[in-house]
Amino acid sequence: MIKLKVGLVQQKNCDDKEKNKQKLAFNICECANKGAKLIVLQELHNTLYFCQTENVENFELAETIPGPSCDFFGQLAKELNIVLVTSIFEKRTTGLYHNTAVVFENDGSIAGIYRKMHIPDDPGFYEKFYFSPGDLGFIPVKTSVGKLGVMVCWDQWFPEAARLMTLGGADMLIYPTAIGWDPNDDKSEQRRQLDSWQIIQRSHAVANGLPVISVNRVGIEPDPSEVTNGIQFWGNSFICGPQGEILSQADSKNEENLIVDIDIERSEKVRRIWPFLRDRRIDAYKNLKKRFL
Amino acid sequence: MIKLKVGLVQQKNCDDKEKNKQKLAFNICECANKGAKLIVLQELHNTLYFCQTENVENFELAETIPGPSCDFFGQLAKELNIVLVTSIFEKRTTGLYHNTAVVFENDGSIAGIYRKMHIPDDPGFYEKFYFSPGDLGFIPVKTSVGKLGVMVCWDQWFPEAARLMTLGGADMLIYPTAIGWDPNDDKSEQRRQLDSWQIIQRSHAVANGLPVISVNRVGIEPDPSEVTNGIQFWGNSFICGPQGEILSQADSKNEENLIVDIDIERSEKVRRIWPFLRDRRIDAYKNLKKRFL
Repeated sequence: MIKLKVGLVQQKNCDDKEKNKQKLAFNICECANKGAKLIVLQELHNTLYFCQTENVENFELAETIPGPSCDFFGQLAKELNIVLVTSIFEKRTTGLYHNTAVVFENDGSIAGIYRKMHIPDDPGFYEKFYFSPGDLGFIPVKTSVGKLGVMVCWDQWFPEAARLMTLGGADMLIYPTAIGWDPNDDKSEQRRQLDSWQIIQRSHAVANGLPVISVNRVGIEPDPSEVTNGIQFWGNSFICGPQGEILSQADSKNEENLIVDIDIERSEKVRRIWPFLRDRRIDAYKNLKKRFL
Repeated sequence: MIKLKVGLVQQKNCDDKEKNKQKLAFNICECANKGAKLIVLQELHNTLYFCQTENVENFELAETIPGPSCDFFGQLAKELNIVLVTSIFEKRTTGLYHNTAVVFENDGSIAGIYRKMHIPDDPGFYEKFYFSPGDLGFIPVKTSVGKLGVMVCWDQWFPEAARLMTLGGADMLIYPTAIGWDPNDDKSEQRRQLDSWQIIQRSHAVANGLPVISVNRVGIEPDPSEVTNGIQFWGNSFICGPQGEILSQADSKNEENLIVDIDIERSEKVRRIWPFLRDRRIDAYKNLKKRFL
């Protein structure tokens, strides 16, 4: 069995960017010390989830790529000899911002970036105000630990995105994410939402025969506008194998670093018995480009 | 709550076609007597799963559409005033066969057919020998109980197919299926396979915000060629709501008729909070038509 040891950092954040980054650095070091060669952070890990309100002052939180946070995490990746998947509020130019994953190679260089393609917008998640939809498409990032199909949060609900990363040669799919409950929803609705979130991502593993890594924020963050009761980020970061089988999972309340071995030869075995890529009816898929029929 | 009562018939079959049909008729009547207005049968429900071997004599089992089985099931649909989803080994002409779902309206007429688009072929499931891939595409069948996104078995592993049915206006997805375990696989592999099968289908409900009905064969059928130990069809027929939540599920060993109420207004509610159809990046999906990149 050829293993890749992966670290997932599930964290609570505060409103102090520097404190969040220092805690991230501590957790990244812990994962690296335990042997992780690939470490994945949650979505927009440097700050609170500021999209709960539409406030122009939040654009101050954005950074260029490269920029100060890239320097910080690139340096960590180099020192610890790890591949690191981060999530940055990107300022591309004045008035143009993206929700961008930045992947660092173990020499500290930027291996590649992915700009979130599917942008949500619903009460408490006003992302269409902050982020322009990505324009780089679904291109896996080539690294020393494999081709990483990195996407971000809302992308996880779209099988098309997972498939395109797979067709692009991704060895695994990776979702930094920030999703949680409306504290006003009852327990059964909360359960259904969490199950749906896990099912849809595990299904990408099944449909495409590859491992999936999902890292989510945890903890309650209040709504600065006090319109809602805030968001209870539900954690449950997990990693599953190419049959969608859960390899490890965090809980819904606590910070945790998961350290998990992926068997990188399993995809070969699983895709031989379930050769879905062989049988896709590409002659009959043209309407997938339509909004509705 | 506007309800639709659905019946699912999970059945063991023998090598006597007439006996299987009589048992089906009995079970369909039972579902109808309990109030089901839509009844779904498993894949190739008239016979044993003959694709365990490649044998030209099995083409004798095929029928035209319309034909004797269509007359039989159409009559039942009319007498019981139900919409009925069946699965027929279709002889289209000499040397041309399909694995075809036939949907009967409650007046006994054929509401529409669907020819299985994705055809599997692996040891014990030699379907590429028997069935030409469907050429009708993914078109929901319009009936008095809604637009039915009927597909067949192997189609269930392809998110593209579920999406295309949804874009075509399907109110629910329906999969007659015949899937089982290799008795030689260990319990953990069997568990992973069953979980994968359920996850991928529940994920279609999640991704598309509609109910999914899956009806599977049950029981052990030996391999006539004695090359393998046969197939242990795993049952577990189920129906889930538009968040992928299980509404009812049969077990892995027994024949069972499930009678389940679908709340047909739930899709409206769920798609309002999870508007995935709004955010699909149709400008970036063109490579879904490619085999590989």
